[in-house]
Amino acid sequence: MRHGPIEFWFEYSSPYAYFAAFEIGDIAKRHSRSIVWRPFLLGAVFKVTRMEPLPGQPMRGAYAIHDWQRLARLRRVPFSLPAVFPIISLAPARMTYAVDAMGPDMAGALARHLLAAMYERGANIAEVSTSAHLGAELGHDEQMLADAASDQRWKDALRARNEEAVERGIFGSPFFVVDGEGFWGSDRLAMLDRWLASGGW
Amino acid sequence: MRHGPIEFWFEYSSPYAYFAAFEIGDIAKRHSRSIVWRPFLLGAVFKVTRMEPLPGQPMRGAYAIHDWQRLARLRRVPFSLPAVFPIISLAPARMTYAVDAMGPDMAGALARHLLAAMYERGANIAEVSTSAHLGAELGHDEQMLADAASDQRWKDALRARNEEAVERGIFGSPFFVVDGEGFWGSDRLAMLDRWLASGGW
Repeated sequence: MRHGPIEFWFEYSSPYAYFAAFEIGDIAKRHSRSIVWRPFLLGAVFKVTRMEPLPGQPMRGAYAIHDWQRLARLRRVPFSLPAVFPIISLAPARMTYAVDAMGPDMAGALARHLLAAMYERGANIAEVSTSAHLGAELGHDEQMLADAASDQRWKDALRARNEEAVERGIFGSPFFVVDGEGFWGSDRLAMLDRWLASGGW
Repeated sequence: MRHGPIEFWFEYSSPYAYFAAFEIGDIAKRHSRSIVWRPFLLGAVFKVTRMEPLPGQPMRGAYAIHDWQRLARLRRVPFSLPAVFPIISLAPARMTYAVDAMGPDMAGALARHLLAAMYERGANIAEVSTSAHLGAELGHDEQMLADAASDQRWKDALRARNEEAVERGIFGSPFFVVDGEGFWGSDRLAMLDRWLASGGW
C-alpha cells in the first residue's frame, strides 16, 4: 500500500480545491507519487453530513469568501468568485472521468484547466458547452466531451465515486488520501508533505 | 490597531484549542504581541451557524477523533479524549474571566492548565470543584474560583463574549484575531505567524 498514488478528491465548486490543485503537483513530484483525480459532488456527501455550501453558511460563509481572497494574494495566484457560484458540477466531473479513462495525468490537466477557467476568468463550467470547449483547448474532442456529460457510463462513474466518498469518510474538498491516510483541506498540504516525507508518524 | 494583542478565542471543549494553546505563546513572543484569552461557548455560536459538536457529526466526527490523535503524535504532546466529552464549559469559562480580571497572563496560565488536565488526564473541568481545584494548583483561591462559576458578574461576562463572537464572525475554536484579521483553526497558526511577520498581505 505504501507508494500508492495521492488521491485528490475535490468538488469543482470549491475554491480551496482550486488552490490545492496547483500545489499538489510539487508535493507528488517531491515524493515520487502519482496523482489520481477524483471529482465528486459535495452535495451528495452533505446529505449525510448535514452541511451546506459554504457561501450560504452564516458567519462561515463570509469568512470563507474573505479567506479565498487572502489565500490568493498569499500564493500570488489570480482569483475571483464567479458570478455563478456555487455550481452544480455534474458536467465537468463526468467529463473528468471520461478523460481519466485515457490517463490520470490528462484528467489532472483538465481539472486544473477547468478550475483555472472558473476561478481566474469566471467561466461557468457547469455549462456543458463551456467545459467541452475548455477541454478542446487541451486537444480533446469537443463533441466527445459534450457527450460524456450525459453518457450513462460517466453518470454511473460519478455516482459511484460519490458513494465511495461517503463510504470512505471523504466529506470535504479538497480531501487527500495517501496509503489509506486522509487529510482534509488545502490547509493540510504541509502535513501531507510531511507525512509523505516521513512515512507517517 | 497594529501591534494589538492576539485574541485567542476558544472553547474548552475543543481539542484543537488544546493544541493551539500551547503553540500560540511562541508565536506571540516572536512578534512581541501579548495574548488575550477569550473562552466562549461554541454552542451559542452554533445556534447561528447551524453546526453541531464535531464528535456527533457524521463522517466529520470520526475524522476529527483520528486527527486529534495524529496531531498529538506529530506534536509529541499527550492526548486522550476525556470520558466526558464534549462538556458544557460554563464553569471553566467563567472562572477564566474572573482570573482574567487579575491579568491576561494569569488567564492564559489557567486556560492551559485546565486544557492540559482535560486532554492529558481526562479531568471533567465542567465540574466546578474540579476546575476550582485545578486553579488552586496555580495559587488561586479555590473558593473564589468556585464562586466565580455562579457569580452573575462572570455569567454576564461570558454571555457578552458569546454575543461578541457572533457579532464579529468568530464561529470556531480556536479562532485568532490580530489587528482585526481573523484566522480560524489550529491549522492556521503558520499563516498567523506569517501574517504577523509580514504585517499582512
